[in-house]
Amino acid sequence: MTAAVSRELDAFIDANTARFRDELVDFLRIPSVSARSEHNADTARAAAWLAAECTRIGLATEVVPTPGHPVVLAEWRGAPAGAPTVLVYGHYDVQPAEPIELWTSPPFEPTVRDGKLYARGSVDDKGQLYLHVKAIEAHLAVRGTLPVNLILLAEGEEEVGSDHLADFVQGHAARLTCDCVVISDSSMFAPGQPSLLFALRGLAYLEVTVRGPAQDLHSGSYGGAVVNPAMALARMLATLHDATGRIAIPGFYDAVKEWEPDVRSRIRALPFDERHFLEEVGAAALGGEPGYSTLERLWTRPTCEVNGLLSGYTGEGAKTVLPGVAMAKVSCRLVPDQTPAAIEALILAHLLAAAPPGVTVTVKHLHGGNPWRGEPGGPWFAAAGRALEAAFGKPPVLTGEGGSIPVVGDFQRILGAPVLLMGFGLPGENAHAPDEWISVDNFERGMRAVAAFWDEAARQ
Amino acid sequence: MTAAVSRELDAFIDANTARFRDELVDFLRIPSVSARSEHNADTARAAAWLAAECTRIGLATEVVPTPGHPVVLAEWRGAPAGAPTVLVYGHYDVQPAEPIELWTSPPFEPTVRDGKLYARGSVDDKGQLYLHVKAIEAHLAVRGTLPVNLILLAEGEEEVGSDHLADFVQGHAARLTCDCVVISDSSMFAPGQPSLLFALRGLAYLEVTVRGPAQDLHSGSYGGAVVNPAMALARMLATLHDATGRIAIPGFYDAVKEWEPDVRSRIRALPFDERHFLEEVGAAALGGEPGYSTLERLWTRPTCEVNGLLSGYTGEGAKTVLPGVAMAKVSCRLVPDQTPAAIEALILAHLLAAAPPGVTVTVKHLHGGNPWRGEPGGPWFAAAGRALEAAFGKPPVLTGEGGSIPVVGDFQRILGAPVLLMGFGLPGENAHAPDEWISVDNFERGMRAVAAFWDEAARQ
Repeated sequence: MTAAVSRELDAFIDANTARFRDELVDFLRIPSVSARSEHNADTARAAAWLAAECTRIGLATEVVPTPGHPVVLAEWRGAPAGAPTVLVYGHYDVQPAEPIELWTSPPFEPTVRDGKLYARGSVDDKGQLYLHVKAIEAHLAVRGTLPVNLILLAEGEEEVGSDHLADFVQGHAARLTCDCVVISDSSMFAPGQPSLLFALRGLAYLEVTVRGPAQDLHSGSYGGAVVNPAMALARMLATLHDATGRIAIPGFYDAVKEWEPDVRSRIRALPFDERHFLEEVGAAALGGEPGYSTLERLWTRPTCEVNGLLSGYTGEGAKTVLPGVAMAKVSCRLVPDQTPAAIEALILAHLLAAAPPGVTVTVKHLHGGNPWRGEPGGPWFAAAGRALEAAFGKPPVLTGEGGSIPVVGDFQRILGAPVLLMGFGLPGENAHAPDEWISVDNFERGMRAVAAFWDEAARQ
Repeated sequence: MTAAVSRELDAFIDANTARFRDELVDFLRIPSVSARSEHNADTARAAAWLAAECTRIGLATEVVPTPGHPVVLAEWRGAPAGAPTVLVYGHYDVQPAEPIELWTSPPFEPTVRDGKLYARGSVDDKGQLYLHVKAIEAHLAVRGTLPVNLILLAEGEEEVGSDHLADFVQGHAARLTCDCVVISDSSMFAPGQPSLLFALRGLAYLEVTVRGPAQDLHSGSYGGAVVNPAMALARMLATLHDATGRIAIPGFYDAVKEWEPDVRSRIRALPFDERHFLEEVGAAALGGEPGYSTLERLWTRPTCEVNGLLSGYTGEGAKTVLPGVAMAKVSCRLVPDQTPAAIEALILAHLLAAAPPGVTVTVKHLHGGNPWRGEPGGPWFAAAGRALEAAFGKPPVLTGEGGSIPVVGDFQRILGAPVLLMGFGLPGENAHAPDEWISVDNFERGMRAVAAFWDEAARQ
């Protein structure tokens, strides 16, 4: 049976669409750039604006200070006994708008062109956060109640690394106890194609330093008798993969869970335009681990990459130097059940074994994050799927994301609840770039999908 | 039969040692720093000073302008019919003295401490050039004649690349026709151990650029499906050598002439302190091509080195970037009969073959120079050997130099005459560093050796 958006909620949203959009425009006018201290007052104003709106629609709301920007915490706990509790996470801070001169219309003067609402923060994440607020308003306005208990948590530091969020969630774990976390801060696979993001890769990021002679030497006077650390580094890095492109670090794949044939088939069935992707990348050809499609390589397989190289003379022209030191930034994208600590240990052991006599190797941990996978077979994915189909007219596809969203793992780990990533952005939305936009249609359909989701969540 | 310095020349040098040193001090006081235009008048003054001195001792001298600093050209053509003609090359310009604060005594106030005359240019090359002038003076003062025809050519641009020297030699080739070129601008193997430098390596210096995506990409969103140019570069560089340290570029060794067993034995017999060398280098261990000693690796074998690496993010911390481009500076030291053009072509072909699909490789020529080898078995080495033994009490050893001195090849190529590199510097002389010095004893013994050399050269 295909679900539908409740007729009376739909009618309320129809009747209030223009107002909802005007309110979002007001929210977007506030330049809550968390990275810039000169915008601290604006960021605080955005938190206050959001809290006032949550209060107005009937949520018990407070603005909770943190060592950084505050958290807006709004709750509604009036659902029938036995109803589930859902935590909605979003963020009210935005990326810096620079370079301003590349915006077609000013970043904090929201403007609609061709069905797109252009503004900094429109899709990341004020628009996607606010459509949740409006879905809640629809329920409360029409029915005076919600079918689920609801916690809305909006932070103001997502664009600067969510430094205080894990501590906040840990410190309020009892109050934030829930059955499911819903996040709308990602994109759909294509216009009109609702999507559930079910996989995020983790990260292990290292800096590798190879030291040879105590200082740079003259490559004529010493070359041939002294081990060159830049060459040693190149040889060490070359051992990270085999000739086919598969990672050759012993044990690297041991913790990797193969994906279910069903999930792989669904990924392979997506209408992915490989030629368009290649054009976007601008390289001569694609590449990667054999036996996997491009989307599988991006979403389901771990990587090992060189992110940076530096050694010796890098200026114009020729300088005959035998470098004293060579550095590489090396990072791996991880998939379940790899962990940053285990992978770092394997890389370290491998590089030390690959280092020739005559150089010393040090490896420094720079950053790490766990991979994440949702449970597409579980009831929450099913409820979200029905709600998305009701709003968009077709069932969602499963998509992955090659990057990392650390808060997802934090919520799942601390609260022990499954996370649903139900995004309403679109490819090309310029999330961190000039001319960021959200589809006006997706803003409204997203609202209807979320409104339906509360009903579906209660129906499980 | 061991040669001896002629008794009357020896006596003249004994009687005039103090004056010779005072004159050298005057010469060293002139800050003829060719690299600094504010010293152009000083550089011209040094040329004039040297020319006046050459004139005073009886040479037909002129200061010949060039597009840069002038050449001092002094000649004596009164030798008996059939006597050989020898061209002495040196330079009257000096390196900049900076950092001045690291000098124990001011760089242009020559000072003797512990048998060393400290001043910028003392050993490189004014002292070594001036001892030739004094040897000529001894002959002309004592005997009124020289046993060889003599051309003394001193340039003022050696420290800035000798940009106009090859043109000058080419343009005056008839006038500069000679049987041998003698250069004293290098060092002895050890104190008390006269040396003839008989090998210089050449150079082929390239910049290798590997391009992947059109710009840096997010390593999460794209990593695993796009060929990483930094990794590709590392893999390509790793193919330049085999696991033993031998260069693996096909054809690379084809033009390399194996050195005579006799020469190799003489190099191996040198009292080389490998532990001291390792300490000086400051590395954990030495390395290089198997089957050769450290000195053989430095003097007789070609190399392939990475001089610089640059790609992606190289600042502090982690940035998850998949680089768009990766660059390496790569240079080879060459030995006879390798040529820069042929080696560059081999490297290019090898790197292109080693590049994976998905990247494009470009190679840019930056610098090149031919290797050089003297003829230790020839009559000029023999004559120089007898003269050095006469002055120092022991025969010279043969030494090589891993770096390049391009003017050596220019003289040999343009004038078709063998080159003798008879240096009187010493290890640790700080040629391009603060506290440059020349051994006072070597300045005098060098003078005696050169005075004896004219006699030995005529005796062939």
